[in-house]
Amino acid sequence: MATDEFGLIERFFKGTATPGIGVRLGIGDDAAVLDPGPGVELVATVDTLVAGVHFPVTACAAAIGQRALRVNLSDLAAMGATPRWFLLALSLPTADEDWLAGFSTGLATAAARYGCALVGGDTTRGTLTISITALGTVPTGAALTRGGASVGDLVLVTGTLGGSAAALAEMQRNGATRAQPAALDADYWYPEPRLTEGQALRGLASAAIDISDGLLADLGHVVRASGVGAELTLDALPLSTAAVARFGLEQTRAWALSAGDDYQLCFTVPPTRLAEVEALAGARGFQFTQIGRLAGTPGVRVRDAAGREVAIAERGFRHF
Amino acid sequence: MATDEFGLIERFFKGTATPGIGVRLGIGDDAAVLDPGPGVELVATVDTLVAGVHFPVTACAAAIGQRALRVNLSDLAAMGATPRWFLLALSLPTADEDWLAGFSTGLATAAARYGCALVGGDTTRGTLTISITALGTVPTGAALTRGGASVGDLVLVTGTLGGSAAALAEMQRNGATRAQPAALDADYWYPEPRLTEGQALRGLASAAIDISDGLLADLGHVVRASGVGAELTLDALPLSTAAVARFGLEQTRAWALSAGDDYQLCFTVPPTRLAEVEALAGARGFQFTQIGRLAGTPGVRVRDAAGREVAIAERGFRHF
Repeated sequence: MATDEFGLIERFFKGTATPGIGVRLGIGDDAAVLDPGPGVELVATVDTLVAGVHFPVTACAAAIGQRALRVNLSDLAAMGATPRWFLLALSLPTADEDWLAGFSTGLATAAARYGCALVGGDTTRGTLTISITALGTVPTGAALTRGGASVGDLVLVTGTLGGSAAALAEMQRNGATRAQPAALDADYWYPEPRLTEGQALRGLASAAIDISDGLLADLGHVVRASGVGAELTLDALPLSTAAVARFGLEQTRAWALSAGDDYQLCFTVPPTRLAEVEALAGARGFQFTQIGRLAGTPGVRVRDAAGREVAIAERGFRHF
Repeated sequence: MATDEFGLIERFFKGTATPGIGVRLGIGDDAAVLDPGPGVELVATVDTLVAGVHFPVTACAAAIGQRALRVNLSDLAAMGATPRWFLLALSLPTADEDWLAGFSTGLATAAARYGCALVGGDTTRGTLTISITALGTVPTGAALTRGGASVGDLVLVTGTLGGSAAALAEMQRNGATRAQPAALDADYWYPEPRLTEGQALRGLASAAIDISDGLLADLGHVVRASGVGAELTLDALPLSTAAVARFGLEQTRAWALSAGDDYQLCFTVPPTRLAEVEALAGARGFQFTQIGRLAGTPGVRVRDAAGREVAIAERGFRHF
């Protein structure tokens, strides 16, 4: 950690480190010292958001801070992990104090909400780029992976789909501002990482993934990793009602299948365990929707109410 | 991890993950699952290198890959930690396959040399920026920190100083190329993270830091964290003989005090334990040089052979 970045991190981000459990030594040394505790495995993921690619440059700094951490924690949710700590690599064109104050407040709010602590940081001069490494823990052997699904397993998703793409379309129409985003844009700026759902599905889901690149693309990773295929029912997709109201059924369905940024979990369970999933939904208030079933034929197909396969134009977000 | 970045990471970087010990699940899921093992604490650090700021854009991609990991591991060395795993966030202007092949080879070479595995990655489009989160372990309670030094403790450094700044000056004079750097530039491109030294100093050094921003700036962090000051002896500084031969004694001394990128460890020991440090140097072939002593007066002062305080123009690398 270099001289003045130490100053920046100290000034703006040290508060974010406060609630950490298992933090023996946080920000301010060559590295953090962390105690994962007994009987657990460490779960680690990194995600980068680039201004102008992953979010509008002109957006509210606090919303960017919230979103940056929430989307990273979504990967921990997909593993069934409990978030513990995170490290931030931040590139900034200038040391804009207003922006830093807003961004660090948003980051601290999300960190407090999900009970994880900032334990390391590095700031450099460059295009606005936020790279977060999130660290969590799972009981040894209990992580949810993409590779455990079998033919016949049911495919489910949490929450609703299409809302984030609708918010993004609305922002592109209106232009994003540095003001707080409207409540309707919350699906984009404040995605809810499905941490409690992921943790509850440990030992129950045969596979899980978070929908960051679009349902078809992400379910595609699961079926490839598990050596199976999937049949989805178009009518079963749980759609964002706000998105349907603003953009219609057809557009929202297309987004639900192919747009990224929903950050719901897509998971599979053997049919014999569906009752346990339903009991969990009832007891804990989780929203789980069955959207299809795994098949032997590779690939992911979507069928309409008459059983006809639906043609899909786009299959998710691609960076290159 | 998004669709095509998965493809890039799979193609170029998956080999880097091979030697990992304690990797239950590496690249290819939402997150990695890692087993730190019993009786240890986790040590975590993040460092970012931006092209044109931290290294010349035109440099050899394999050398950049080596350097990026080595400078991160230097922070683990300063904690006395053993490197285990790392995550890579890579921003690239284009998916240049030659560059990726070179960079990933350099990264894999350094990973194999230091026994740590790539367990997660994210690639985005942007200015060439390499952000690495390095994860290591130390026996519980054994991490070396900046804050444990006392008045009267001796100040030592590993290796020699000034060589990296000399190499950088030489490159700026000649222009860096994509060819393999000359052997004389090794101090810049292939800094040796002092991992074995750091691990050997556990339980012996009262404080430690790596010299990434310059000796005075980094020792300044130690004395502030420990609530002490330091007196250094100018003549005692172990200088790079290649740097002295090319740039003279005075310039090399200035670099040794204030230039960054040396990646040696600066550490302190109580005088009563100097014999143990010397025995370690003899038995393990470590190069340790005593360069000063901690004092009660805050700040770091440098004195010449006559005991006069030397004026220092620059005090280390500043990012902002």
